[in-house]
Amino acid sequence: MEKFLTDEKLVIVGAAGMIGSNMAQTALVMHLSSNLCLYDIFSPEGVAEELRHCAFGGSKITATTSVEEAFKDAKYIISSGGAPRKDGMTREDLLAGNAGVAKELGQNIKKYCPDVKHVVIIFNPADITGLVTLLYAGLKPSQLTTLAALDSTRLQSALAKHFGVMQCAVKNCCTFGGHGEQMAVFASPVTIEGTPLLDIIGTGKAVNGKTLSKDEWEAMKKAVTQGGSAIIKLRGRSSFQSPAYVSVEMMAAAMGGAEFAWPAGCYADTAKYNHIMMAMPTVITKNGTYRKDFVGTDEEMASLDASYKHLCDLRDQVIGMGVLPPVDKWGEINPNLK
Amino acid sequence: MEKFLTDEKLVIVGAAGMIGSNMAQTALVMHLSSNLCLYDIFSPEGVAEELRHCAFGGSKITATTSVEEAFKDAKYIISSGGAPRKDGMTREDLLAGNAGVAKELGQNIKKYCPDVKHVVIIFNPADITGLVTLLYAGLKPSQLTTLAALDSTRLQSALAKHFGVMQCAVKNCCTFGGHGEQMAVFASPVTIEGTPLLDIIGTGKAVNGKTLSKDEWEAMKKAVTQGGSAIIKLRGRSSFQSPAYVSVEMMAAAMGGAEFAWPAGCYADTAKYNHIMMAMPTVITKNGTYRKDFVGTDEEMASLDASYKHLCDLRDQVIGMGVLPPVDKWGEINPNLK
Repeated sequence: MEKFLTDEKLVIVGAAGMIGSNMAQTALVMHLSSNLCLYDIFSPEGVAEELRHCAFGGSKITATTSVEEAFKDAKYIISSGGAPRKDGMTREDLLAGNAGVAKELGQNIKKYCPDVKHVVIIFNPADITGLVTLLYAGLKPSQLTTLAALDSTRLQSALAKHFGVMQCAVKNCCTFGGHGEQMAVFASPVTIEGTPLLDIIGTGKAVNGKTLSKDEWEAMKKAVTQGGSAIIKLRGRSSFQSPAYVSVEMMAAAMGGAEFAWPAGCYADTAKYNHIMMAMPTVITKNGTYRKDFVGTDEEMASLDASYKHLCDLRDQVIGMGVLPPVDKWGEINPNLK
Repeated sequence: MEKFLTDEKLVIVGAAGMIGSNMAQTALVMHLSSNLCLYDIFSPEGVAEELRHCAFGGSKITATTSVEEAFKDAKYIISSGGAPRKDGMTREDLLAGNAGVAKELGQNIKKYCPDVKHVVIIFNPADITGLVTLLYAGLKPSQLTTLAALDSTRLQSALAKHFGVMQCAVKNCCTFGGHGEQMAVFASPVTIEGTPLLDIIGTGKAVNGKTLSKDEWEAMKKAVTQGGSAIIKLRGRSSFQSPAYVSVEMMAAAMGGAEFAWPAGCYADTAKYNHIMMAMPTVITKNGTYRKDFVGTDEEMASLDASYKHLCDLRDQVIGMGVLPPVDKWGEINPNLK
């Protein structure tokens, strides 16, 4: 019998969906918790049955549509449980809808499992839904992270393909700030087989016989920011395997497994970036999430500033909708965000 | 960096589908091979991209629609690549279609990778598609297995639920022969928390405060044989997580990972059961598949005989279709089946 990282209760929110059901399976394969609860507003019993038929043996798998039952005694929560964007919905409709879902999630955490240890949020826009959940759950910033690594892993994958090397030969890929077209891609820390990427772009210097022109780099960055829609085009459906897998890796780290060193979305409280959740240099460990300093060129820091501004605008929209109170009132709801 | 069980090429056939894409992810999470090839007649590039975005690091992931490219140098193959049953198709149409797919698969193995070490087949009816593949691939019986464990794991899960115990407290669940309503459920080896199941059924003897009447047991067996359709009812789609996971476990065993001791479908060559592929008492190891003796009550052996007869009828239908030659000609195509 394999050992689990913990016997404390792990809840997958949105477990009946494609992402949630994959998370649940991945969590069992990776031995996260012997006590796995599947929760969804649609019955996740079919998913639970499939997982029982995998015969993981030492794990207890429960399924429920009751949030009270699900969250009671929960110590770890991963939520993929937002509404997907439907035909005719505007971006703002989606934002309002999922911000509302996040508020309820946070309130339920506060009500039913205020002693939860770590929460990972992945429903879109995760920078906002994570922030809203954090506020209403009353948790410390180090206890809640959002999935923000996929832009960085996509950059790693694109560079590995271009140079014809293994992905593990491409190190320190990171994108910070918001997700999507507003992300800030940091090239300066990246090395390909030990050679700094900045020594390669537009210099004619080759690694594994391949150069990278400035135009190719710009095209690659653009492709990375559109990584999600590329999957839809290739596969006819939104990506679900990579968000599920990577968020389970994040949670494994919070439980004491291998540290997670890709960027995570977390609450920023520096002098320059604050009252926002965004992708930062982080390490998730059993003792919480550590935030590290940004290190980048002036150009990279400027693109991070732009990304931050974009996120603040988005946050202010949600404040305008009334889902979040004004920033100076946050401490009344969650003293950890004073 | 995690170590893989092998650096030899593992091919997932049908990798663009729900089962195949889950297999591919599971194989990477479980570190089966650092050299994973996704093959499908529909492009599996979207799945490959998702897996690259998981950043497994030390693995090379390729995707192709060319069987020649996929099978070249392949040492391990898992195939979920059959056609699903469509509206208006009879059972015979499906049988003819998938038996034809299996023949082509076997011929391709012989042509492009005769040195393959192990093949796992899971497309339906797997007893037949496995047999057809084995014949045309020219492999030894110990080199090819079919997924047959899900009936046994479903029985384990049903018993664990009934008695309110962990699944690992229910031991030696096994169903042999064919899959579905013709399977032979062997109760005699089963123990619940150490108590033999036969001492419990209809005796009033309780485990964990629960008894099991003869009627309850009959209903449970019937439910287990219909486990697949129960998932469709619960989930609105065929099961894909459990077949994917369990078949990857089988392959991990063949690569030298933990031995797989649930029943596997394999070629029967005993005096009583022969020229057939069916679920048998087996152990899959790095050195091949070992077949053990059947141990059961007279009643259980009689139900196995009935299941065997059903499978022989199905095989003879496929011989009638011309996809398989008559039994006495098999040795001309595959000397290992003389």
